[in-house]
Amino acid sequence: MIIESRHEKFPVGKYVVGEFGWRTHTISNGKPMLNGVPQAWIIPDLGNLPLSIALGALGMPGNTAYFGFLELCQPKPGETVFVTGAAGAVGSLVGQIAKIKGCKVVGIAGSDEKGKWLTDELGFDHFINYKTDDIVKKIKECAPNGIDCYFDNVGGEISSKILLNMNTFGRISVCGAISGYNETSSPKATIVQYPVTMNQLRMEGFIAHRWLDRWFEGIQQNMKWIEEGKLKYRETVTHGFENMYSAFADMLRGGNTGKAIVKV
Amino acid sequence: MIIESRHEKFPVGKYVVGEFGWRTHTISNGKPMLNGVPQAWIIPDLGNLPLSIALGALGMPGNTAYFGFLELCQPKPGETVFVTGAAGAVGSLVGQIAKIKGCKVVGIAGSDEKGKWLTDELGFDHFINYKTDDIVKKIKECAPNGIDCYFDNVGGEISSKILLNMNTFGRISVCGAISGYNETSSPKATIVQYPVTMNQLRMEGFIAHRWLDRWFEGIQQNMKWIEEGKLKYRETVTHGFENMYSAFADMLRGGNTGKAIVKV
Repeated sequence: MIIESRHEKFPVGKYVVGEFGWRTHTISNGKPMLNGVPQAWIIPDLGNLPLSIALGALGMPGNTAYFGFLELCQPKPGETVFVTGAAGAVGSLVGQIAKIKGCKVVGIAGSDEKGKWLTDELGFDHFINYKTDDIVKKIKECAPNGIDCYFDNVGGEISSKILLNMNTFGRISVCGAISGYNETSSPKATIVQYPVTMNQLRMEGFIAHRWLDRWFEGIQQNMKWIEEGKLKYRETVTHGFENMYSAFADMLRGGNTGKAIVKV
Repeated sequence: MIIESRHEKFPVGKYVVGEFGWRTHTISNGKPMLNGVPQAWIIPDLGNLPLSIALGALGMPGNTAYFGFLELCQPKPGETVFVTGAAGAVGSLVGQIAKIKGCKVVGIAGSDEKGKWLTDELGFDHFINYKTDDIVKKIKECAPNGIDCYFDNVGGEISSKILLNMNTFGRISVCGAISGYNETSSPKATIVQYPVTMNQLRMEGFIAHRWLDRWFEGIQQNMKWIEEGKLKYRETVTHGFENMYSAFADMLRGGNTGKAIVKV
């Protein structure tokens, strides 16, 4: 919350979101930082929604899903969309946006409890548990007509297997490679160049700030979908600043469903 | 050569190119095959150029270089372009087209003899020998400002290393994964998703027949550049049908420079 201000666009009493690091107070001039990351933006009127949503579905993760999926995958009604990290802050929104756009959606995550949430509550068509399922067999079962769009949060071997089942001119939006973030050296996986060539795939990586000039378009659209009941979200909240490290490590292990939040 | 015809577009005496397989005679109705591959196309007037060029610089490999590089990499003057398989039928043309477009070009191949041809005769700025050079060090030396475009013929670990040195919004045209074609199982390499995300790269695979409707544009432009002395080509010719297998295996081992041709 802004407690003192000499900037008319940042009035006292409003709430801001910024990537300031962990701190009690921050002084900001409101200008973007050098690398284009916004130092602070005002949280719009959220109605009855909790403030923390500005860190999730109506913040950077929400815009990551909105722009990263729609702009790079260019999904068309009737197409088959795969999402890894499907129960995470971004993946769970991507799958729902794909449903809104009339696609068939398959989510991949690491527990049946997450899968139940995806299919029973969020409307995903199918769920694959990468820890217990026969991935190759399940991919073919869930996508008998092949895969058109893939939103990749994880990288690694699962992604290589998905690429082998993509249709000609399939699109891949690469949001991250979380499967390797816990490794001390860069992980290896079956090379992607073979399916990329044979299936003439387009794979594109992104950072959400690419669409900084359309930032509030994403937030407003996601808010509208939430109000209409078309977009649901979940938060895994850890209480206490002292539990920040374990919350972060747990997120990398896949312990969270939806956005991982630390409440101080 | 057409020896008998009832199709006005395929008159007797003209030469055709087609992916018919190895055979002495072929009957064709001149129509494209189901997968869009042209069953036969007439070789245009080549002037003093040898007929075999219709299998190389003025055929599928020439169009692979022309469309695959220009359309997917979208090179701009002053940008740094990397090419693997640089001394091959396609790679050698890609590097020269990049020079024509005002780029700085670095070729990667497997012998210093090939490298000498690339830099001394074809005008490549730098050459890296992937069998004997310290690849990571050489990449940084040859591309102090990073890499903007990468034409990938090989896949595998070299490609992963190149991707780590690409600039934001770099473009990768994936033509093949020859590094793995001799393997009995799919090879693994350091995953690409990390640099693809961090550097916001676009990687796109293709098969040249995607541009079938512009096929002769590529051939005519390449022919013009050859006539102007801007595009040079080489053929590695193996004589005798009985030597076909060894010519093919030798090509996969990198024995050829330029287009590998078997003359029967």
